[in-house]
Amino acid sequence: MGGGGAASTGADGAGAGGAGAGGRDADRADGAGAGGAGAGGRDADRAAGATLRTLRYTVADGVGRIVLDRPERGNGITPLLLHELERTVEHADLDPAVRVIVLSGAGTGFCGGYDLVEAAEGAAAVSEAVGAPPPGAPTEPAVIARNHDPSRPWDPLADHAMMSRNVRAFMSLFHAQTPVVCKVHGFCVAGGTDLALCSDLLVIAADAKIGYPPARVWGSPTTALWADRIGAQRAKRLLFTGDCLSGSEAVEWGLAIEAPEPERLDERVEALVQRIARMPASQLAMMKLLVNQQTMAQGLHATQLIGTVFDGIARHTDVGYAFQRRAAEAGFRTAVRERDEPFGDAGLSTFKG
Amino acid sequence: MGGGGAASTGADGAGAGGAGAGGRDADRADGAGAGGAGAGGRDADRAAGATLRTLRYTVADGVGRIVLDRPERGNGITPLLLHELERTVEHADLDPAVRVIVLSGAGTGFCGGYDLVEAAEGAAAVSEAVGAPPPGAPTEPAVIARNHDPSRPWDPLADHAMMSRNVRAFMSLFHAQTPVVCKVHGFCVAGGTDLALCSDLLVIAADAKIGYPPARVWGSPTTALWADRIGAQRAKRLLFTGDCLSGSEAVEWGLAIEAPEPERLDERVEALVQRIARMPASQLAMMKLLVNQQTMAQGLHATQLIGTVFDGIARHTDVGYAFQRRAAEAGFRTAVRERDEPFGDAGLSTFKG
Repeated sequence: MGGGGAASTGADGAGAGGAGAGGRDADRADGAGAGGAGAGGRDADRAAGATLRTLRYTVADGVGRIVLDRPERGNGITPLLLHELERTVEHADLDPAVRVIVLSGAGTGFCGGYDLVEAAEGAAAVSEAVGAPPPGAPTEPAVIARNHDPSRPWDPLADHAMMSRNVRAFMSLFHAQTPVVCKVHGFCVAGGTDLALCSDLLVIAADAKIGYPPARVWGSPTTALWADRIGAQRAKRLLFTGDCLSGSEAVEWGLAIEAPEPERLDERVEALVQRIARMPASQLAMMKLLVNQQTMAQGLHATQLIGTVFDGIARHTDVGYAFQRRAAEAGFRTAVRERDEPFGDAGLSTFKG
Repeated sequence: MGGGGAASTGADGAGAGGAGAGGRDADRADGAGAGGAGAGGRDADRAAGATLRTLRYTVADGVGRIVLDRPERGNGITPLLLHELERTVEHADLDPAVRVIVLSGAGTGFCGGYDLVEAAEGAAAVSEAVGAPPPGAPTEPAVIARNHDPSRPWDPLADHAMMSRNVRAFMSLFHAQTPVVCKVHGFCVAGGTDLALCSDLLVIAADAKIGYPPARVWGSPTTALWADRIGAQRAKRLLFTGDCLSGSEAVEWGLAIEAPEPERLDERVEALVQRIARMPASQLAMMKLLVNQQTMAQGLHATQLIGTVFDGIARHTDVGYAFQRRAAEAGFRTAVRERDEPFGDAGLSTFKG
């Protein structure tokens, strides 16, 4: 999956330490700003009996709203965030009061990818939440760090064991019977695109940036839904360059269903969600399972298996180790900028030659 | 999946109440007897931080041993058992000390299928374990009961939402990177076969009974691995009749890998498991993922989707409702005996004409 590449207004001085831990970066998107928090309704963030620390969750009028709530880190993905996401999606999917789920992000953008710096802390919090993992589990930060030490042979299957659990969490959005609408504003890059593409429908602000710059170094799409969404040729156009799309382009390319101007994003998402919520839940479930089955039959299982193994490989090539080293020395923000500047699309740019 | 059909030495007077709750029966296999509990080693039943109530779990010498531990109920499957199984498999799969998992059952047989009587209680225990589900969740006993009331229209997708979560738990055995050897003694019928077939390798006592009698009424295989294991024609031979195989026949038909005499079962499982445990974990993971991919590519996702919907249908047909009504009136043991007597294979018999 690989880290950020998103617009960033914050420094990432803390990134270096995390690099050794084998996690991923998310360029910070500082500042507050209204993400896409849903309307009030009964407070439902007791999902699965736990208090949520990385998400907000509310239910009202047939809509379950999950808001990524780490705006100070560009909603960077941590183990705890994925754990809470999977549990919350399951909770929403079991709730007869929920006909449709909306996934959005607080702050200046939807999601900047994996958050390297917080990864270790997040893993500890997961342990706290679900019980201690076995000593030496492939999800333990120390094990991940050892498995990213270029002076030692790496264990690709321990890597797969770790990363495939992230895939499983993202795919909870896909496998839920309940339709999921993803609302993207600002940016949705790197691992953030796993969240967006595992959702059923994408509504994106016309000026937002979406794509997978880690294709350039240190990443391969793991949930790997690009070709499913936009066809092989367009998927290759993006993945051979790491180039990104604007929201408007995402609609033209078939990646998103609608790309309103940013100030109309909430309104357009609401209009769509309200239409979906008018459908009987059983009809929605059948329509979703029916279409998903075609995606599965076209080989998604194998694509994700290969993509997840490839992602591990990408973090253990010469160029992968060099990127990791540079990030450890100079900070992730710098490493990401240096990755993107030759392509002319650092920050919020979607320049593509 | 449907309930039992196994050898039974116990009465099932308590079954009637459960019928209304829409759960499943497991003929009781009373008595104690050594199931297949593994050798000592460090006590690992703190899996996922919880104390196990339906399983025992130990780890020693590279082998994680999961023992179904409800011998007084023929190791009947309850929501809590499936929840604990999924968590324990995940724990074992994350444990670098575990190279191979052995799944077995305590008491006189491996597993007699779903336990109708305990289903409601088990669901409550799951709530306790993972937090309250949303009100009206399709996994709630009252919701399941209402959805099996013949005087009301049933909701097939709520049914699917409930039953597909059982499939997910069974399939944790399949998707784990760690190989799983299933040791069957006595009987393995109805839902018990989901456990055995989702495991990678089956070693079964020569005199044990294995099969899916609920094909006769009130069930369809949900994990549906029969054709994958023994080919279409042999799968049809069993599913068109609900007939069962002995352990010896299971080897002849390719369903099991070995069928020693009962007194040599433990010894033969140990020999196999020790050979597997000699392999590097990464090699084992690759060999398992490689073969599983073929199964997935051959359409398992769709087969399980259809099988799970069909199972719901089977519980809501005229004959399905009649079976449920008979079980409520006369007890499940009687209903199961009446189901099987026309076929001449009630109890431990594997007569097939």
